[in-house]
Amino acid sequence: MTYQESLKLKTRGHGHMQDLTGTISKIVAQSGIKTGIVQIFNVGSTASIGIIEFEPGLEGDLPAVLDKLIPPSLSYGHQQAWQDGNAHSHLQSTLLGQGLTLPVANGKPVLGTWQQVFHLENDIKARERTVVITVLGT
Amino acid sequence: MTYQESLKLKTRGHGHMQDLTGTISKIVAQSGIKTGIVQIFNVGSTASIGIIEFEPGLEGDLPAVLDKLIPPSLSYGHQQAWQDGNAHSHLQSTLLGQGLTLPVANGKPVLGTWQQVFHLENDIKARERTVVITVLGT
Amino acid sequence: MTYQESLKLKTRGHGHMQDLTGTISKIVAQSGIKTGIVQIFNVGSTASIGIIEFEPGLEGDLPAVLDKLIPPSLSYGHQQAWQDGNAHSHLQSTLLGQGLTLPVANGKPVLGTWQQVFHLENDIKARERTVVITVLGT
Repeated sequence: MTYQESLKLKTRGHGHMQDLTGTISKIVAQSGIKTGIVQIFNVGSTASIGIIEFEPGLEGDLPAVLDKLIPPSLSYGHQQAWQDGNAHSHLQSTLLGQGLTLPVANGKPVLGTWQQVFHLENDIKARERTVVITVLGT
Repeated sequence: MTYQESLKLKTRGHGHMQDLTGTISKIVAQSGIKTGIVQIFNVGSTASIGIIEFEPGLEGDLPAVLDKLIPPSLSYGHQQAWQDGNAHSHLQSTLLGQGLTLPVANGKPVLGTWQQVFHLENDIKARERTVVITVLGT
Repeated sequence: MTYQESLKLKTRGHGHMQDLTGTISKIVAQSGIKTGIVQIFNVGSTASIGIIEFEPGLEGDLPAVLDKLIPPSLSYGHQQAWQDGNAHSHLQSTLLGQGLTLPVANGKPVLGTWQQVFHLENDIKARERTVVITVLGT
């Protein structure tokens, strides 16, 4: 069995994190699939999907860590070619990843109590995003 | 076809790596699935799942690299809110990822000779962990 | 339904990126699967698979960022044990990941216009690589 849904997300710009866990659980429930996997994917190369304990402290820490590891700067090759100021957005998104997969058991995504799936805007401005969620199993 | 198993793992604390490859192969064999994928997932947001050549050198290098990139420190926002001393554990786990997927061919996970799946404890103390392994295919 | 194909890739050595998007689309089309997922996996622990806007600027930026985060060096534990000069290759590959999954919709991998799947050689010399592509769905 395969079930797929796509959703729209408005982001407020660089570093904006949103908790997708509730939406994913709802889609898995709608799919009728009891055992399998659910794959979550951001369409576009300057935002990312990951897992974290979703709370205000880490919501600030994660974008800060990414900006420390891959700082905003106009010295990247991407900037020389495109002058769009978001080379670090691309590189942060590549490092963190733009999709992930969870197991599904008993008709629910398997997650710990303090383990949530987030969408992170890495781009430098507010964007409208599409996220595709695919459930496979029996 | 879908097959799922969950396993318990005891960890010795921050930086403890364990090789899951043998266990994954056994579960794939038990599933009877010949062609498809196997997904491995750590339940909980302060440990990670990854791939490496599992040998003592890299077993020391990987936790050291993570501690260099995202140092243990009490200055994270997560620490201000929770005082549990493991903000870096969360962030390292988010960066490395808490699950991954391998192809299955001829009833076995496809891996190179020096390519193993590991579980890495990022938290600051010994923990009991649950890992969920899901096999899908035909 | 499950469909799997494996392909050979020649790489030119450290930092060589190749765009796999066209090949993946062709394999998804051949699979006959309309809705589901496609998983792409590099066999071997010193190359990686990721997503980026595939253009010459970022093609230089990404390997440079990885070399900054995890510098080539002979001081790693892996080097002490094996003297093969590629400890950073292993660690970069572990950090970026050796496989990823995309959704499939309407018989095509779902990707944004500026979102491509790449293979990155992290090893220090030219290599011949095997990439396994698995399509699952209906």
